[in-house]
Amino acid sequence: MTVKFRPEIKDLVPYKPGKPIKDVKREYGLTEVIKLASNENPLGSSPKAKEAIIKCAEELNLYPDGNTTDLKEALAKALGIKPSQILPSSGSDEMVDQISKTFINSGDEVVMADVTFPRYLSTAIMMGGTPVVVPLKDFTYDIDAMEKAITDKTKLVWLCNPNNPTGTMFTEKKLLDFLDKVPKDVVVVYDEAYNEYVTRDDYPKNSLPLLDKYPNIIIMRTFSKIYGLAALRVGYTIAAEEIIENINKIRGPFNVNTAAQMAAIAALEDQAFVKESYRVNKEGKEFLYATFDEMGIWYAPSETNHIFIDAKKDCQEVFVELQKRGMIIRPIFKTYIRVSIGTMDQNKKFIELLKEVLA
Amino acid sequence: MTVKFRPEIKDLVPYKPGKPIKDVKREYGLTEVIKLASNENPLGSSPKAKEAIIKCAEELNLYPDGNTTDLKEALAKALGIKPSQILPSSGSDEMVDQISKTFINSGDEVVMADVTFPRYLSTAIMMGGTPVVVPLKDFTYDIDAMEKAITDKTKLVWLCNPNNPTGTMFTEKKLLDFLDKVPKDVVVVYDEAYNEYVTRDDYPKNSLPLLDKYPNIIIMRTFSKIYGLAALRVGYTIAAEEIIENINKIRGPFNVNTAAQMAAIAALEDQAFVKESYRVNKEGKEFLYATFDEMGIWYAPSETNHIFIDAKKDCQEVFVELQKRGMIIRPIFKTYIRVSIGTMDQNKKFIELLKEVLA
Repeated sequence: MTVKFRPEIKDLVPYKPGKPIKDVKREYGLTEVIKLASNENPLGSSPKAKEAIIKCAEELNLYPDGNTTDLKEALAKALGIKPSQILPSSGSDEMVDQISKTFINSGDEVVMADVTFPRYLSTAIMMGGTPVVVPLKDFTYDIDAMEKAITDKTKLVWLCNPNNPTGTMFTEKKLLDFLDKVPKDVVVVYDEAYNEYVTRDDYPKNSLPLLDKYPNIIIMRTFSKIYGLAALRVGYTIAAEEIIENINKIRGPFNVNTAAQMAAIAALEDQAFVKESYRVNKEGKEFLYATFDEMGIWYAPSETNHIFIDAKKDCQEVFVELQKRGMIIRPIFKTYIRVSIGTMDQNKKFIELLKEVLA
Repeated sequence: MTVKFRPEIKDLVPYKPGKPIKDVKREYGLTEVIKLASNENPLGSSPKAKEAIIKCAEELNLYPDGNTTDLKEALAKALGIKPSQILPSSGSDEMVDQISKTFINSGDEVVMADVTFPRYLSTAIMMGGTPVVVPLKDFTYDIDAMEKAITDKTKLVWLCNPNNPTGTMFTEKKLLDFLDKVPKDVVVVYDEAYNEYVTRDDYPKNSLPLLDKYPNIIIMRTFSKIYGLAALRVGYTIAAEEIIENINKIRGPFNVNTAAQMAAIAALEDQAFVKESYRVNKEGKEFLYATFDEMGIWYAPSETNHIFIDAKKDCQEVFVELQKRGMIIRPIFKTYIRVSIGTMDQNKKFIELLKEVLA
């Protein structure tokens, strides 16, 4: 090949998603496969979202509303903020990409945890930034160490709370202390993709008032998790108007497809579905906790819809053995795996198969 | 604001889409509004695509297939190439962004025409590249001048054939001469979003064999135009495997939503719909040509689904006056407007209102 690629992308590794259910069925000759690998809502999505999609089928030929006017208005109304503080995007993946393109230049330091959402790292490298990676402490964000990692070259800090893949959280007090100490020219991106699942009281349940005090904060939310719209790709960034205006400059003109816009508006209206999803998740988590305790399996305390556990056996081996039996989970590293909380039937099946594999 | 944005994005202007039909209706108290502004397929989309969407409503909670395996296979089969030479994306907008991120670094020269698809320019600036803009000649790509604009700093050349917004094309001979002269380390992106509408014989009807001879070419295609799937955002890049692998490194893991993947596969199967769309477009174009001739209106010869005309009146004024009357077109610059070819009823209505406005 004679063309030259950007040196920044040389060492990037493409994301390797797990096998689709149908491929696992075919490969192992299975009729039923359960996927608890991608933190998807096991209840599906709101019937209202489904209706919206069917309506959308009549206008596939028309470009989406590039301004996402109705979605921004619906969100602004629901959240009590201005539409101009909101920027919908094609899921958190695109949001992270947009934020990196808005702020990170060659040589800028970008502080992030390890392990956490992998797009923080790949987009920082893509933009020529210098990742400053702060290990988790007890599988939880080490906020104090992250604050100490900030230098005069730091451009941006990524916080994921609760964290993926460990499911752990840090408290409102920790967040406020951090925001008070961080220089105001450092962008703090606060990704709360899983916030609706949190059960603990010391979590920053409402991050929106932070916008007034800390103009350097960017909040990220998604419809992929508790709203059950992962298939369509839709989430949103909340920040000061000037930040939103600048991200908007590099945004593709029709980045949120029509099906996603219509389904998100409909899903937002169905808070009963969100409530039920929370309930089922909490119940599933308590069942899994109790069973893990019985089995002597260590798990990180989760405030999300997934649990990070120590299988005490090579994670790849556990993954393959479970997959053969029709159960897809996510191997993370060493002996650690991540399992999404499913319906009670799915959780029971997972336990049954895990016992087989670990026996 | 204390945070600092990348200097590269300072002068970028966000895309300003036209008003949605419903806003125009409300603003002017109209019950019927026709939009011939965005080169959308006036026949809608294939019924098979609609069925696919309805099926998709049952699995909104599941992440898309990140590898777009079925879509790549369907395309590979239809085109007679390998799936590994294809990379689906969220429309041409994302494709252009991905290509710029894969190749353009600070100081790299990026050769492009003016006027053409605006994302070539904005993503070059976003990546710190130096745009080298070659004016059209007689509203057509000036391929000779573009070839002369190539220096040892040129990283990439954007070609849009036929061109948007002028609708004009350059010949297969011109393309081959250009590719023979361009140094092999310069990436040539050949965007043929409108290729299915071309009627002329000297157009490069099948660009795929070029891949063997010119490993530096990247071909871009879309489902937004003749396939009528603009709402869902789906297109695809075709190139040498090594180029596809590198673009794939910076791609978001789930960039093509499930609805888009399923609808594209279904739409690809319905070539009767494509054929009928071509027929209606050709018929409409001939009607509009004949009427423009009668009216003494100059137009650029179009090989697309839109016509670039000289209204001999300020384009913004023509746009507003038509909009008031329930007809949305696209003002381009000076006295030039672009009108999408609609159904015959829409074309007749456009002519009726244009006569009023220009009287």
